[in-house]
Amino acid sequence: MTLYLIGTGLHDRDDLSLKGLAAAKRCKRVYIENYTSRSFSSKEEFEGLIGKEVILADRDLVEQKAEETILAEAKEHNVAFLVFGDPSSATTHSDLMLRARKSGIQTRVIHNASVMSAIADTGLSLYKFGKTASVPFPQGSFRPESFYDTIQQNQSIRAHTLLLLDLEPKKGKYMTVAQAIGILLGIEAKRKEGVITPATLLVGCARLGSDGQTIQSGTPSELKEADLGEAPHCLIVCSDLHFMEEEGLKTASGEERKK
Amino acid sequence: MTLYLIGTGLHDRDDLSLKGLAAAKRCKRVYIENYTSRSFSSKEEFEGLIGKEVILADRDLVEQKAEETILAEAKEHNVAFLVFGDPSSATTHSDLMLRARKSGIQTRVIHNASVMSAIADTGLSLYKFGKTASVPFPQGSFRPESFYDTIQQNQSIRAHTLLLLDLEPKKGKYMTVAQAIGILLGIEAKRKEGVITPATLLVGCARLGSDGQTIQSGTPSELKEADLGEAPHCLIVCSDLHFMEEEGLKTASGEERKK
Repeated sequence: MTLYLIGTGLHDRDDLSLKGLAAAKRCKRVYIENYTSRSFSSKEEFEGLIGKEVILADRDLVEQKAEETILAEAKEHNVAFLVFGDPSSATTHSDLMLRARKSGIQTRVIHNASVMSAIADTGLSLYKFGKTASVPFPQGSFRPESFYDTIQQNQSIRAHTLLLLDLEPKKGKYMTVAQAIGILLGIEAKRKEGVITPATLLVGCARLGSDGQTIQSGTPSELKEADLGEAPHCLIVCSDLHFMEEEGLKTASGEERKK
Repeated sequence: MTLYLIGTGLHDRDDLSLKGLAAAKRCKRVYIENYTSRSFSSKEEFEGLIGKEVILADRDLVEQKAEETILAEAKEHNVAFLVFGDPSSATTHSDLMLRARKSGIQTRVIHNASVMSAIADTGLSLYKFGKTASVPFPQGSFRPESFYDTIQQNQSIRAHTLLLLDLEPKKGKYMTVAQAIGILLGIEAKRKEGVITPATLLVGCARLGSDGQTIQSGTPSELKEADLGEAPHCLIVCSDLHFMEEEGLKTASGEERKK
């Protein structure tokens, strides 16, 4: 049978595509992950839309127990696995798909909007983004800096950097733009390689793709104090701007769209 | 009133989101662009789904005559403008949005899947893609090479490059992976900077996001002869692969998914 990885898009259940909804309705079992981002629709709202029970899948279920659950079931009947944004953006889901294929289960990805293209709402050109990096919560002595290196690499070819910010939805913990800037400034203070300077242009985004999205640009000191509201947030470290990007950013920035 | 830019996603009308469809139904006028990619649903099929007339908008209408048509109408009532993939990926649409905002028209983007995240179906990590470039059809003495420079820049930071291939849907002209490789090899033969070598790993994709998508990887000489079938095509120039990417690419490559 088929395992459908269905993107739910950026905000709520109405971002599902007609194709994604139809596929979920055809499946005997429907899972929804709850750990790579957040949806503004509840499990019950998805159940109402799809017309059947929806099972919450946390990281542990997907990464440790998929063999006994999702994959075992997908050998018997069609199974849907709903994923925030686009299903192929996160390693955890690519890995599930790979394991399914190795077990001889047919897989089908139903794509949807991803933060990786929604960042164009900032007015910055998608073509000019370099590698993407994640900023994890520091935990004790675990203080990774690889995203600092990625920004530096991108700067060497005049590319912007999208930073995806860590989250632990189970604990209601979502990294904010302000926190991420604090972490970046901490690494800069230590390494002093000029990757983040007082003049570096940053763009903070919150709830991209929703009616109430917030986009705000400024220097580290300006944005460090900014309150962009509810999660999820992401942060862009800009390289040189084309004048079209400058104009686009000005129009998008600071504008909170009305519902 | 509001100008809605609504992404139609990657393949056909059923890739529309529930939100996108509902917005289009609320609008008095509905346009669909026909020049940045192609949809596998006809205008009539979109009309059937939305329940009203849909007007084809070519590049000339959007870039030269939007003031008298789309923008003038959006001052009086809600207007929908359907765009292939994600509406914010192409400069022509960002520009329309900017002009609308300057005329005091409220805009609303309804995101959808884009080739820029669907390329993760290849098994390559989205995080490791650098800047994106377009490969235009050479026209007489107009033989741009900037995409060659972009590949070179990305290689300097070990990033993959997504190349979007030119198309002229009105003439039914779509650049194939084979043609793009021919153009790249021509530039390499002239500039000899080692950006494309006989060992460079390329990935050709066709109809990404559809049930019948084709993904094929190989060296330039292997892929130059490949027939990936119907457009649209895109081409990826790989940098070093992580072993997870190698495995993913092997699984995805050469596999034509069954309907």
